[in-house]
Amino acid sequence: MDLAVSPLVREDEGARSFAAAVVHLRGLCAEDLAAVNRTILTAMRSQTPMISDIAGHLINAGGKRLRPLLTLASARLFDYRGDDHVRLAAAVELIHGATLLHDDVVDDSRLRRGEATANVLWGNKESVLVGDYLFSQAFELMVSAGDLKVLQILSRAAGVIAEGEVLQLATQKNLEATFDMYLAVVESKTAALFAAASQAGAVIAGADAKAEDALRSFGRNLGVAYQLVDDALDYAGGEKALGKSVGDDFREGKMTLPVVYAFDRAGPSDRDFWRRTIAEGRQGADDFDRARRLIVATRALDDTFACARRYALRALDDLARAPLNPYAAALAEVAAQSTERVS
Amino acid sequence: MDLAVSPLVREDEGARSFAAAVVHLRGLCAEDLAAVNRTILTAMRSQTPMISDIAGHLINAGGKRLRPLLTLASARLFDYRGDDHVRLAAAVELIHGATLLHDDVVDDSRLRRGEATANVLWGNKESVLVGDYLFSQAFELMVSAGDLKVLQILSRAAGVIAEGEVLQLATQKNLEATFDMYLAVVESKTAALFAAASQAGAVIAGADAKAEDALRSFGRNLGVAYQLVDDALDYAGGEKALGKSVGDDFREGKMTLPVVYAFDRAGPSDRDFWRRTIAEGRQGADDFDRARRLIVATRALDDTFACARRYALRALDDLARAPLNPYAAALAEVAAQSTERVS
Repeated sequence: MDLAVSPLVREDEGARSFAAAVVHLRGLCAEDLAAVNRTILTAMRSQTPMISDIAGHLINAGGKRLRPLLTLASARLFDYRGDDHVRLAAAVELIHGATLLHDDVVDDSRLRRGEATANVLWGNKESVLVGDYLFSQAFELMVSAGDLKVLQILSRAAGVIAEGEVLQLATQKNLEATFDMYLAVVESKTAALFAAASQAGAVIAGADAKAEDALRSFGRNLGVAYQLVDDALDYAGGEKALGKSVGDDFREGKMTLPVVYAFDRAGPSDRDFWRRTIAEGRQGADDFDRARRLIVATRALDDTFACARRYALRALDDLARAPLNPYAAALAEVAAQSTERVS
Repeated sequence: MDLAVSPLVREDEGARSFAAAVVHLRGLCAEDLAAVNRTILTAMRSQTPMISDIAGHLINAGGKRLRPLLTLASARLFDYRGDDHVRLAAAVELIHGATLLHDDVVDDSRLRRGEATANVLWGNKESVLVGDYLFSQAFELMVSAGDLKVLQILSRAAGVIAEGEVLQLATQKNLEATFDMYLAVVESKTAALFAAASQAGAVIAGADAKAEDALRSFGRNLGVAYQLVDDALDYAGGEKALGKSVGDDFREGKMTLPVVYAFDRAGPSDRDFWRRTIAEGRQGADDFDRARRLIVATRALDDTFACARRYALRALDDLARAPLNPYAAALAEVAAQSTERVS
């Protein structure tokens, strides 16, 4: 394997530094986060046991709670003293959970966070319906927080996420997909919720328009960086570290940035390889390894990480427009380390 | 065929009278309904063509718009003069559309309103995601109407619908399902949205608590009657009249009331038939015809219609607690005719 240039070689310190940044943020928001978890547990309670089972499997499977932490920290950053940020943060995590359940159905995923997915354990139908249930519970929580502007921000995000997923499906197996098309997918399917989660915290805390915009922009840029790293790790990561099946994107023919770059830079015979494996979906046992080698050799992987770092830097710039306090510092640390993570 | 006791023999006048009642209601709300349709068209607009295509296929496929009509008529019944009822009615239809897209995936349905379903034409994945999109658009519309109480009513309904669908999945193929279990499914998967749609109109119009409760109860009872007839027609209807595949429920092993009654009243050999076809899902070419004959012979079909009529009468009683005006009269006509419909 000539993956020496991949982030795998930095696995130890990389894993530690990003994980440490999230742990630090979680520590700052520990009480709030415990309240979020209690709120989520209550929202998942249902007279129908299958709903509680599936939702519990997903929500308890060790997610980082990164998105709700954005809401909590943004609210606290602006010195918020109420408790609506807890309900909003819980709603954000439930929206995320609902999209994960539906994504795993759409992508036929088998593994998430190191565990079998709900669609494998219970079935596709069940995952679709429980996703709908989580989605509706998220809205109930948002409504109970009672802020119409926040409701508008988060319901808009939910629509943009769905649009992004459809767009991704439409660009799948399409080797003519460009950087801009890829970015449109990432901005809608991932960055929109990061942006809305961060903005919602600022809004509920009564931040002024400039500060609100700074937090929204911070969330968007962090979300893009995060997804870029995710897409790089699907080719560079080790299965154990990532907690999901490496190579899923390749098998699905997803036009993520590593493939966009690698195809763009490929010679004729490698282009034939990409056409066969991505456009036509005909893949043999060694094809994923060859894809990884091509992505490294064309520097597609390096450039994907470099692109992620540019977005992480923009996120840091955004934070410079917010008050300087421990919450801002913790968010900055997460952004700075977001491109070093391995899972 | 010994279906002489089925409603098929009344097809002509039955079809006319229910259709006439809906046409009458639609005529009363014609301007509002045109505004609802425009609002829906705008909400379905997306930069991603597949979304507009799928949503358009579903929404334009000649639905009766019964649920949004409940919202419009309820609002007008209490002399509402604003235009938020239009947004809420559009949201109700979009929630309904989202659940139809997901239902057809969950049930593997091939035909709806006489046309191929979206999951057949575009695929399951696409239907799941576009359903999510419609759901989020519904919430955006509700938020734009700006009434937190209505938001709470409708988001609660969305959660109850999802719970009902999961419950239905859990009782599928279970011959021990009782009338009460069946009713719980119907109340949540169908009647909850009828109830919320009717109540939302009353709330937005500022009706008092008693009147609001009357409209909610009216919607719930009408919804139960409507679903009972639907479930009866899946055994009694003609495919053309119903506009969806007759026998879908039987093939899926759904424990609808005709089967609950028929199994309860069956002798040993017929019980074996139901066990094989419903519990074990082993069905041959003639089995649906035999199921229809058994359901007629045990009076399961008659009793399902009788049960529907009881709920329709309750709906009429509920309306007696509301002001008497043309909107109330038109809603009463729909309720009275709801058990006579054939599609």
